Amino acid sequence: MVTGSNRGIGLGLVKEFVKMNHPPNHIFATCRNLTGSEAKALQDLATKHPNVHVVQLDVTDHSSVKAAVSVVESHLKGQGLNLLINNAGRNSQTPFLEDVDQQDMLLTYNTNTVGPLLIVKEFLPLLKKAAKETASKDLGGNKAVVINISSFIGSIGQGFTTTITPVPPLYAYRASKAALNMIMACLAVELKKDGILCALIHPGWVKTDVGSEEAPLMVQNSVEGMLKVIANLKSSSSGAFLDWEGNEVAW
Amino acid sequence: MVTGSNRGIGLGLVKEFVKMNHPPNHIFATCRNLTGSEAKALQDLATKHPNVHVVQLDVTDHSSVKAAVSVVESHLKGQGLNLLINNAGRNSQTPFLEDVDQQDMLLTYNTNTVGPLLIVKEFLPLLKKAAKETASKDLGGNKAVVINISSFIGSIGQGFTTTITPVPPLYAYRASKAALNMIMACLAVELKKDGILCALIHPGWVKTDVGSEEAPLMVQNSVEGMLKVIANLKSSSSGAFLDWEGNEVAW
Repeated sequence: MVTGSNRGIGLGLVKEFVKMNHPPNHIFATCRNLTGSEAKALQDLATKHPNVHVVQLDVTDHSSVKAAVSVVESHLKGQGLNLLINNAGRNSQTPFLEDVDQQDMLLTYNTNTVGPLLIVKEFLPLLKKAAKETASKDLGGNKAVVINISSFIGSIGQGFTTTITPVPPLYAYRASKAALNMIMACLAVELKKDGILCALIHPGWVKTDVGSEEAPLMVQNSVEGMLKVIANLKSSSSGAFLDWEGNEVAW
Repeated sequence: MVTGSNRGIGLGLVKEFVKMNHPPNHIFATCRNLTGSEAKALQDLATKHPNVHVVQLDVTDHSSVKAAVSVVESHLKGQGLNLLINNAGRNSQTPFLEDVDQQDMLLTYNTNTVGPLLIVKEFLPLLKKAAKETASKDLGGNKAVVINISSFIGSIGQGFTTTITPVPPLYAYRASKAALNMIMACLAVELKKDGILCALIHPGWVKTDVGSEEAPLMVQNSVEGMLKVIANLKSSSSGAFLDWEGNEVAW
């Protein structure tokens, strides 16, 4: 399952899954609005690939998250969910202190931090089910994996020293990603006993609506790299923060 | 100025300021409710010490923050504010994933993370004024200092390895503090040009309503330690995360 999969990195991930030699039986591609031009590329992909299920999910709406669980459950028919990629996120155009706005801070946190946590909470029974299924040992020995797309600029230790270009403070966005990193570290500790691995991935600076046209990395290269990193995750990687090439990122 | 100064560490800080050989001309002690039993100890202190001004401030209410600026300004009569200690915070009783609640996540973030940021934004003109005043060079050479009370358990790198006692995930609280750490790192970068130093301090595990009676450290010891750390801050410490004994804490 990939959230926010109607464009950018989310859509890129779904495209990679369907291209695999042994594609997953079910790919749950969630997005906020199922209709309209924003969802067209994803809907077209789903028409061509019956294993792609487009599912409505607004990560800021708890009832929408719960409804998505029911939809996913109905397709899985008793099976578990072995890979959840929390990708949906919101950029915030508030680079400097004078731009900071309380409502924008809360909306960005709700989307980028609280949303992924609520999704893990509600999909936990399906993740636990996958972790118990001995057959699905193809994820680097891990039976159920939660991946969160984070960002280099959500790193306090490294996020101010990028060599590419100086990045402004971006208070709302950076704070939401630093908090997401903490949330994943907490989940990695709490869900270890259930055999569920949690990790964060920085996708690189990618040509998307968030990353802009200036970005040096194509979606496909980022996505290919991330899927390789995910496939190579070991139990000991739980709680790790890695980039799309597998390098560790500081907190 | 100390926020959340009606009890615990906030009240302890105000008590230390009035005990100094050369106490500050003005100590702004803010709290949410000025009346009632919760504010009594602070109001009693203000009655004995005319340099203590009790100011209403609800950190989650932007208009309340703005009103507090006017009150502080009216006392300062053209002078700047040379030390702001963001201490007000909220504990969240949601230790594990099953306890996570969207509204609690947002309220905790609004109080512990967005509040301190809005306070810096609104008090910035007074902080800048202090930074320009050459007379107030008593803060370790720094002309204006913003301190945020953070927490060891808001450290992703160290917050899960405390030797005292295993601390549960506490999603809402830890995420809000990790985000606060990022906010301060951003502020340290942005406000450097204005001569305003920003730092985070972990007060230790202190006997307060938040820390509980189990905590090994008395409020006075924590507060004495923190004031020593603040007095010794150098410009190069901007953006640092230190504990009450001056040790660096990992992000």
